[in-house]
Amino acid sequence: MTDLTIGVDIGGSKIAAALVDESGRVVARADRTTPRRTTAPRVVEDTVVDAVSELRSSHAVIAVGVGAAGFVDATGTRVMFAPHLSWRDEPLGERLQERLGLPVTVDNDANTALWAEHRFGAARDTEDVVLITLGTGIGGAILVGGKGYRGHGGMAGEFGHTRVVPDGRPCECGRTGCWEQYCSGKALARFAREAGRDLAGPDLATAARAGDIVAQGAFTEVGRWLGVGLANVIAALDPSLVVVGGGVSAAGELLLAPARQALSGALVAADHRAIPPLHIAALGADAGMIGAADLARIGH
Amino acid sequence: MTDLTIGVDIGGSKIAAALVDESGRVVARADRTTPRRTTAPRVVEDTVVDAVSELRSSHAVIAVGVGAAGFVDATGTRVMFAPHLSWRDEPLGERLQERLGLPVTVDNDANTALWAEHRFGAARDTEDVVLITLGTGIGGAILVGGKGYRGHGGMAGEFGHTRVVPDGRPCECGRTGCWEQYCSGKALARFAREAGRDLAGPDLATAARAGDIVAQGAFTEVGRWLGVGLANVIAALDPSLVVVGGGVSAAGELLLAPARQALSGALVAADHRAIPPLHIAALGADAGMIGAADLARIGH
Repeated sequence: MTDLTIGVDIGGSKIAAALVDESGRVVARADRTTPRRTTAPRVVEDTVVDAVSELRSSHAVIAVGVGAAGFVDATGTRVMFAPHLSWRDEPLGERLQERLGLPVTVDNDANTALWAEHRFGAARDTEDVVLITLGTGIGGAILVGGKGYRGHGGMAGEFGHTRVVPDGRPCECGRTGCWEQYCSGKALARFAREAGRDLAGPDLATAARAGDIVAQGAFTEVGRWLGVGLANVIAALDPSLVVVGGGVSAAGELLLAPARQALSGALVAADHRAIPPLHIAALGADAGMIGAADLARIGH
Repeated sequence: MTDLTIGVDIGGSKIAAALVDESGRVVARADRTTPRRTTAPRVVEDTVVDAVSELRSSHAVIAVGVGAAGFVDATGTRVMFAPHLSWRDEPLGERLQERLGLPVTVDNDANTALWAEHRFGAARDTEDVVLITLGTGIGGAILVGGKGYRGHGGMAGEFGHTRVVPDGRPCECGRTGCWEQYCSGKALARFAREAGRDLAGPDLATAARAGDIVAQGAFTEVGRWLGVGLANVIAALDPSLVVVGGGVSAAGELLLAPARQALSGALVAADHRAIPPLHIAALGADAGMIGAADLARIGH
């Protein structure tokens, strides 16, 4: 039997853990609710230990990988800052390693998701890739020459907090005009609400497919901002492929069609270059967890 | 005696060529005026061949490197598009190689300048670096793990044409609101002119140092835009160092002090990370040429 690793995705609302085999297949799952933002870091740790212990009770495991919605340092051990959790310079990797008695790697959740898409999903056989995840906010990750690019301090890929509108909408990060204020699940719901539809993302997608022009308009607007922001990302990085994931990406072409149109208008030298294709992520909500498990296997 | 290579920097107004030794020292120079934009590509080639021939007449040369102000493809042979020249998908490398009978490598001029700063200048011993050159427009280049990162199609680093203002100032590239419309030699002169000082960059720097508050204000404004735009670049790439080159960078702290201030206010998670230092480029106007020569040596 193949060696198994555990992948853990620590998000703002859910902690998803799974046993994963070397082909990226999920063998068993254990999900938990993320403790509230005001809770001490120790409680999040307890929750992860609990989920991992459940999975280990039935299978032998060689390592644990964690993808966390936060800024992880370049050594893959400390979470420097997590907007949706109470962590500030938290030695999550070391603490879990001590408590679990297993090797533990920690990375940003978008980095682990991109790794999963590269190994098993939409970015197989592609070496220079950007991943944009559209959830509550924007997550981003960069693959260079088939390797995750994390930057000097481990904080590369924070495209969501690049400024696209001077003196624009206030952002949770404390600044204004951040891309994720115009292009995210939150922005989608706001565009719809401002036009009279008080629906959340999945319901908006259903309404849009049923012909609701307000819901369609909200996707068009988020898609347009996706294209405009991607023009900046592509001018900077010139990837061969852009993968779009996260909950909002389930809308597929409702989102990508206006994004492609805006991108071709906004990208410098668009007539003199190959514009990278935009693909929807293949692994859905499991990507972060599967990628974390695979990185733990490789690190091990 | 050491093997010599020739570096050629093809800019919008000047073609600068030099014999360079393996320590990056310029042994001899040959400068030419760049043929006008409307001239056939062949005339630019003739001019390069003429400058190279002059340098070869006195010394043996093993290879030629070219840095060009344009989009160069990933193979380092074709110039896909050059805003300030008449090139469109021009096989410059092959043509020069045929005519000179020497190996010829071609790269974007910002890439060759960053390589020179990495080997011999402000970015020695630093592996993850971004270079921003402020000339007429903005040039950009990226070093990842000590290697030039050119992107899938060779067009990475075009930060100058990322959009910083929706519906902003028209740009020569055909779009609006590009960063270089707010942060470049051209923008500097415009800010000063709008406030009543009709001076070019070097005279503005002199005036600012002599206490002219309008000239100082123009540098402060360009510096502020430098910091705001760098916040986006750093959020995306998280480099360990940013080198600022190009003619405008000769102003030094007049430019960097307001840039640092704006950067620390605009960068996401600024309180939870090391903000990369901003250094002025060390090799001045010679960087593009010296880097091209060194890349030709390595390629050879």
